[in-house]
Amino acid sequence: MKLGANLSFAIKRWLGGDRLAKVVKEDLGLDHAQFTWDLVDPWWPSAERDRIARDYAAGFKAASVTIESNFGGLASYTYNHFLAPTPELRALGKEHFKRAIDMTAAMEVPTAGMPFGPYSADDALDPRRREDIYREALEALVDLSRHARKSGLTSLMIEPVPLATEFPSSAADSLKLMKDLDGATDIPVRLMVDWGHALFTPLFKEDADMDLWMRICGDYIGAFHIQQTDGLLDRHWNFTRDGIVTPEILADFWKRHKLTDQTYLLEIIYPFEETDDFVLEDMKKAVRLLRQAA
Amino acid sequence: MKLGANLSFAIKRWLGGDRLAKVVKEDLGLDHAQFTWDLVDPWWPSAERDRIARDYAAGFKAASVTIESNFGGLASYTYNHFLAPTPELRALGKEHFKRAIDMTAAMEVPTAGMPFGPYSADDALDPRRREDIYREALEALVDLSRHARKSGLTSLMIEPVPLATEFPSSAADSLKLMKDLDGATDIPVRLMVDWGHALFTPLFKEDADMDLWMRICGDYIGAFHIQQTDGLLDRHWNFTRDGIVTPEILADFWKRHKLTDQTYLLEIIYPFEETDDFVLEDMKKAVRLLRQAA
Repeated sequence: MKLGANLSFAIKRWLGGDRLAKVVKEDLGLDHAQFTWDLVDPWWPSAERDRIARDYAAGFKAASVTIESNFGGLASYTYNHFLAPTPELRALGKEHFKRAIDMTAAMEVPTAGMPFGPYSADDALDPRRREDIYREALEALVDLSRHARKSGLTSLMIEPVPLATEFPSSAADSLKLMKDLDGATDIPVRLMVDWGHALFTPLFKEDADMDLWMRICGDYIGAFHIQQTDGLLDRHWNFTRDGIVTPEILADFWKRHKLTDQTYLLEIIYPFEETDDFVLEDMKKAVRLLRQAA
Repeated sequence: MKLGANLSFAIKRWLGGDRLAKVVKEDLGLDHAQFTWDLVDPWWPSAERDRIARDYAAGFKAASVTIESNFGGLASYTYNHFLAPTPELRALGKEHFKRAIDMTAAMEVPTAGMPFGPYSADDALDPRRREDIYREALEALVDLSRHARKSGLTSLMIEPVPLATEFPSSAADSLKLMKDLDGATDIPVRLMVDWGHALFTPLFKEDADMDLWMRICGDYIGAFHIQQTDGLLDRHWNFTRDGIVTPEILADFWKRHKLTDQTYLLEIIYPFEETDDFVLEDMKKAVRLLRQAA
């Protein structure tokens, strides 16, 4: 299996291109990474932001680690973005992704992605509002695909999340989004499917099944976030913990579906209170377990 | 006890001044709140940001809910800010707080606060680097106190966090920070002490004791974050769950220390996957439990 790391595990701890690339390459032995906006905030003033972002790109390049994509993290996930209740908030969501695309271009990374964002509690219960806001979000994404192509990106990504108040959440939602965008965008939009989101049983029940996701929208999946989970919350635990995703299940899935390019990106989110030593050792152990199963 | 709510429980769910004030006033029956930057990002372009922030201020004012302070939330807590490893990142941390102060002034709220931020994993182990960066952070805060006073704020706040790699974490650290700032700032800087941080036993061991915090730095505590916890991680659970903080303990502490103004601000952070209905009912139940104990 093609293994990489989303850099969320490192936020606040190992900063700067050379330092973090060393962790990824030497400590973890990985050649692929997904950059997180939790390291560089797309809202930072663009000159400083791009200088800091380029330092990461240079450090990873020097260490021969490929940054495949740039992705929204915890900070970005805190706001409503494209599905917010007011036009002003939705415009800020669009501007946020546009700024992230600019930063991605500055890093010479080909892809940027994030979840669409949540509806407010009230809008989520109103089918008409949901539809109107969704239509607007599609238009925004089409616009952004034009900007992204001009900036040198080759694809965008949207990540389904395990909430009925957001969109897309299910595999069927995700397919709908892909069909609605097909042919309308200047560059392809693909899905970043997170195993822990797809296996969230309180929402998806018997459809919490990765094979079902492959049947329904497998053609559109650009890459996977992998995480350990109990299926009851969006845990983002590491594979050193017991749960319903084992390295063996991941390896079997990879083989059965004859995957080649859709990197398994370890997206582990540690409590900030965990010590740096613990996080590094735990990441090493998890990569070892995944390598053994592959 | 004087009870209020940090608005973290509401992020992504109940947005806009009127809507959220209704939740706080009518559903929860509270008259005091702490605004969170997870609702309005200080980095948003200032015209839109302040317009959206003022809408919250107006809604809360109309509902007679006092916003006592403006505070950094999850998104802000994701970055290194004042204790970051490079001058450029530290300048961005200072700019972040400056922008938050501007937003606070636009809302006519008297106080803004946040944690200082973490050192990188490497700097945290280097006493010389820690000291140099800390000195710079003090200067930045003195500068910002001048800006805050000019903007109409009457105090700033710093929140100790339960990590040896950040500062301040312990009660002794917190006292040191207060003494180092005493007389140097244009407006007072106070501590926002979080019960769940102070009771984090893996770091503080037998010093995980709120009475000890009162003895050591009680004079400087501006208000408290309250949360339920098992003392093993920074849980931010609600009081509907069992843990080491009970409403009775909170009430007894309030009485014994003859507290009057240092609001107990419920800071509950729900998994985003929890439903809106659950969150609202859970918040109501917790406020009821706290009222019963008072």
